[in-house]
Amino acid sequence: MTFSKLLSEAIKKKGNPISVGLDPRYESLPAVFRTADKADTSGVAAAFEKFCCAVMDITAPLVPAVKPQSAFFEQYGPPGMSALGNVIRYAREKGLIVIFDGKRNDIGSTAAAYAAGILGAQSAWGADALTVSPYLGDDSLEPFVKTAMERNAGIFVLVKTSNPGGAMIQDLHTGGNQTVYHRIARYVNKLSLETVQQGEHYGSVGAVVGATYPEQLAELRKTMPYSWFLVPGYGSQGGTAKDVAASLDENGLGAVINNSRGLLFAYQREPYLSRFGEQQWEKAVEAATLDMIAELTL
Amino acid sequence: MTFSKLLSEAIKKKGNPISVGLDPRYESLPAVFRTADKADTSGVAAAFEKFCCAVMDITAPLVPAVKPQSAFFEQYGPPGMSALGNVIRYAREKGLIVIFDGKRNDIGSTAAAYAAGILGAQSAWGADALTVSPYLGDDSLEPFVKTAMERNAGIFVLVKTSNPGGAMIQDLHTGGNQTVYHRIARYVNKLSLETVQQGEHYGSVGAVVGATYPEQLAELRKTMPYSWFLVPGYGSQGGTAKDVAASLDENGLGAVINNSRGLLFAYQREPYLSRFGEQQWEKAVEAATLDMIAELTL
Repeated sequence: MTFSKLLSEAIKKKGNPISVGLDPRYESLPAVFRTADKADTSGVAAAFEKFCCAVMDITAPLVPAVKPQSAFFEQYGPPGMSALGNVIRYAREKGLIVIFDGKRNDIGSTAAAYAAGILGAQSAWGADALTVSPYLGDDSLEPFVKTAMERNAGIFVLVKTSNPGGAMIQDLHTGGNQTVYHRIARYVNKLSLETVQQGEHYGSVGAVVGATYPEQLAELRKTMPYSWFLVPGYGSQGGTAKDVAASLDENGLGAVINNSRGLLFAYQREPYLSRFGEQQWEKAVEAATLDMIAELTL
Repeated sequence: MTFSKLLSEAIKKKGNPISVGLDPRYESLPAVFRTADKADTSGVAAAFEKFCCAVMDITAPLVPAVKPQSAFFEQYGPPGMSALGNVIRYAREKGLIVIFDGKRNDIGSTAAAYAAGILGAQSAWGADALTVSPYLGDDSLEPFVKTAMERNAGIFVLVKTSNPGGAMIQDLHTGGNQTVYHRIARYVNKLSLETVQQGEHYGSVGAVVGATYPEQLAELRKTMPYSWFLVPGYGSQGGTAKDVAASLDENGLGAVINNSRGLLFAYQREPYLSRFGEQQWEKAVEAATLDMIAELTL
């Protein structure tokens, strides 16, 4: 089954396009997980694994995907990466689609090593998709596209990111009323179209487009009609259901809307803090996830 | 000691600015290391570690730095990352400066996690420097700069890469006779200048500029007078001593010239194949390193 079909079916089955961003931050974990010294990388890594698996126990019946953020695991060295491997394996056992958020890339043969290692059930990491940076250009993206096609996996290329500083390069005007991000968007859509399989509308090459720039999101939906969007920035970064509406097609497909802190650490903010607090952090995760589903499917 | 001073002193001590790129590829390893099944990630990772450490036994007395390429280790999952951790530790024991080639980046707090984890002797990975991608803009670079300053570490921001496809974004014209890479170069030089410490000429923020574009290399040296250059593309990718000459100042400082395959797998190519062959792969590494030193210091 192609990545696009896998994603479509999972979204239809769960009735929403939500990805839970697995961004474990030690200082934000509920106290019950904070038993290790922060300098003990193995102890922190074990806590991350335990916490992320507990979050998936709650959310796997509700949402189609998870997006583990590699940085938070890498921060704790080799033990952190082992924990990430275990988290991915657990997610797959739970039937979740795994988007490895690593924003990787390099030149040709090195990009091929990232693609071979991270993408596909038979790879060392076993992720369904990977986020990829476009700065190194077309020949750096090719190995990812090739591997994605061979392994029924997907990639999401950074196009318009959710942070204000993204404008520095992405919004530069390059002539012909085209910014840098416009040009990448057009290239991504070309790759998407080339990877569309029979019976599918979207291809295996998607785009990262932040929820924090709703006008650009709507514009980019038109520029990239054949591309899955991965939309970060919902919740804590300010993106709302209204902001992301334009990324979804009439069938509720075409985009994965990610929320990380807003779900994982819901117990830290209202209304979940008063209703549940740290003791009942699991109920806070569940309620925040159900609330986000309701917001997106109104 | 600042990263810039550490690098200057190491280059002066060894009398050359060479970095040995640790890019282990299983199919290229000398037969003595290829005893594991390719699907056995732990076996391959152990072979990588053994090979890279053997390469450092030969090259540590000769050169100042190594640049492990994360992708080749990540390709073999968590065991690969453990091997990378051991390789970095061994390099530091040997007194080598370690440039972690990961081309990482993400938005603010996630970038901070990469920086905290990878940079500095007290971090989980313990690297002296990290390669960073600029597509996410200024606010994504800030946490790396901050951590580098706190930990006496460095970063190298991708400016003009060695691959042909790099032109796709990097060479786009953005008005005022400035390409994308020109604008990033100017920003990098500003960061370099801001991080110059008393008694030093170069700052803690450097630039990746490929050896395969010698004209741009010379031009970028003028644009970034306060930035260390990390110059890939020497040897196998076609860069020569003449091509990289402009990156070095009159004291032989200001740049680190990296060679990966050309040194690691010297036994596979002439004149080292005939002189040494696979049996004497170590002598091939040594001879190729000494030849590169001679080329650069003529």
